[in-house]
Amino acid sequence: METTQIRLAQRPVGAPAQDTFATATQTLPDLEDGQVALAIRYLSLDPYMRGRLSSANSYAEPVAIGDVMVGGTVGEVVESRFDGLVPGDTVLSYSGWQSAAIAQGSHVRKLDPSLAPVTTALGVLGMPGFTAYAGLLEIGRPQEGETVVVAAATGPVGSAVGQIARIKGARAVGIAGGPDKVRALTDTFGFDAALDHRAPDFVEQLKAATPDGIDVYFENVGGHVFDAVRRRLNNHARIPVCGLVANYNLTSQPEGPDQLAGFLGQVLTKSLTVRGFIQDEFTRSHGRDFVRDMGGWLADGRVRYLEDVVEGLENAPAAFAGMLRGDNFGKLVVKV
Amino acid sequence: METTQIRLAQRPVGAPAQDTFATATQTLPDLEDGQVALAIRYLSLDPYMRGRLSSANSYAEPVAIGDVMVGGTVGEVVESRFDGLVPGDTVLSYSGWQSAAIAQGSHVRKLDPSLAPVTTALGVLGMPGFTAYAGLLEIGRPQEGETVVVAAATGPVGSAVGQIARIKGARAVGIAGGPDKVRALTDTFGFDAALDHRAPDFVEQLKAATPDGIDVYFENVGGHVFDAVRRRLNNHARIPVCGLVANYNLTSQPEGPDQLAGFLGQVLTKSLTVRGFIQDEFTRSHGRDFVRDMGGWLADGRVRYLEDVVEGLENAPAAFAGMLRGDNFGKLVVKV
Repeated sequence: METTQIRLAQRPVGAPAQDTFATATQTLPDLEDGQVALAIRYLSLDPYMRGRLSSANSYAEPVAIGDVMVGGTVGEVVESRFDGLVPGDTVLSYSGWQSAAIAQGSHVRKLDPSLAPVTTALGVLGMPGFTAYAGLLEIGRPQEGETVVVAAATGPVGSAVGQIARIKGARAVGIAGGPDKVRALTDTFGFDAALDHRAPDFVEQLKAATPDGIDVYFENVGGHVFDAVRRRLNNHARIPVCGLVANYNLTSQPEGPDQLAGFLGQVLTKSLTVRGFIQDEFTRSHGRDFVRDMGGWLADGRVRYLEDVVEGLENAPAAFAGMLRGDNFGKLVVKV
Repeated sequence: METTQIRLAQRPVGAPAQDTFATATQTLPDLEDGQVALAIRYLSLDPYMRGRLSSANSYAEPVAIGDVMVGGTVGEVVESRFDGLVPGDTVLSYSGWQSAAIAQGSHVRKLDPSLAPVTTALGVLGMPGFTAYAGLLEIGRPQEGETVVVAAATGPVGSAVGQIARIKGARAVGIAGGPDKVRALTDTFGFDAALDHRAPDFVEQLKAATPDGIDVYFENVGGHVFDAVRRRLNNHARIPVCGLVANYNLTSQPEGPDQLAGFLGQVLTKSLTVRGFIQDEFTRSHGRDFVRDMGGWLADGRVRYLEDVVEGLENAPAAFAGMLRGDNFGKLVVKV
């Protein structure tokens, strides 16, 4: 079986571009016992992948030059030497940016297409949804009547954060870029207030939308949104830090003044909790609850999601670069 | 009864100076039922008082211009209209920078001079000791074999942090300014390693003293110590933020580049926990354990302390300004 692969060609300086990646075709080897051959149907594109392009210290190994880009995938079993999977089964795997792959049968998860669209395994019922669930509930700990703010709020993490916050009785304020996304925040996701971070009076809008201050800021963007939000934080506010997409393409430290001392002063005088996390540290403690809760909320309509499906693996690099600029509208998935 | 008071005369810009304060004498009113009259014997000087001089937003109200400076005190009851206290009793009160005061009997705590020197109620057995205990154990959570770093380590908070860390089986690295203090860290307090932050090769010394990285940094100074320490933090390191004495006198943000985005990136990629706190939020949950544990450790010699006693209330302003520069050697107390 042939696979078309998108590989890392060179590490980008700043934003990834077309020459960051290279396409190649390869013949997959024969199956060994315990393996399955997969035709990849959907590839997930997520902001964390920017970190994998860099050699800087991070929580995960970078992708090596010449290797296939990593990523979550939904595929169809086309051949199986693994008990319990047969051709035609749909599975979640981590096969990366390619059209076909071999996987260990024990490392994939069989999906039931009758329960929910299979792409939700890459979004609201998958890693992004779990990131929102675990980070908000374990670190953010929103209490009834508190105010929760999240940016990139039409995305798979942000939209789940807002909706879970409301389920827990908190007031949810969403931030996004552009009028269509802002409208979706209230109309599709039921946020209590929605703001456009590109508005010239964004700082004033944020103030008006958070009359009682901010108790939880679920941080996934950084940049000027963080600068505005941090001035509205209440005493004992919690900041789960799950992403900083506005900073990922930075090639140098921003110009001064140096705001770090001021921020630490705020951490001290307001007794703030700032906590970085990667969702997988919570798999053991919260994974089972997530499947139960999120599955239930999705089924009863209390949680909704948006998907932005790009056709064609060859368009993954441009779609990925666009996502880092905020071009996507909902969970970005490539139909391979 | 007359009291000599040191009052806030004007808010300092930068470091407090002699003209920040003014001395005045006043006659105390007659006692009402439930009150006691106190002759103040000892006044505690602590870094948090710098915050009370500023009108900037903080966790506590600033001292008003013309008001007596606040502070913890040990005094002797000279007259009592409160059941349970009689002249001659020694009590802990919050009477501020003055030589005599009236207090509600129900708001003071009677001390037993036979158990420990009464000044320890202002230090190792008082607020600073509890700050170390609660912040380290509740936020820092040192595990056996982990590395705990603390600066201002001959001070009442830092010295307790190091000693409690060792009691919990962690490796304690202390940072102080000058050779005498550095010697006291190992000789008096038993730190595993001791560093002088004024040494030209401080960054290299820190690296050598923390071969396995840093798991807990108990932050009470900020500044260049924080800059060096943060580059040695391990994944999942915890930073209780209890003070930032190096920053308290800053009159403007430091020059750039702006390191805030870089620090947040570190919080994210290393899953750091940064948590500001004021000790009194833990009084209910940890106060009783503290009295039992710290009293026991002091009695059996596992915890030691140093005091720096300044004679004369009139010398409090200069001693306070010196403390913010790190001039004191141990817990700073004024003998009134």
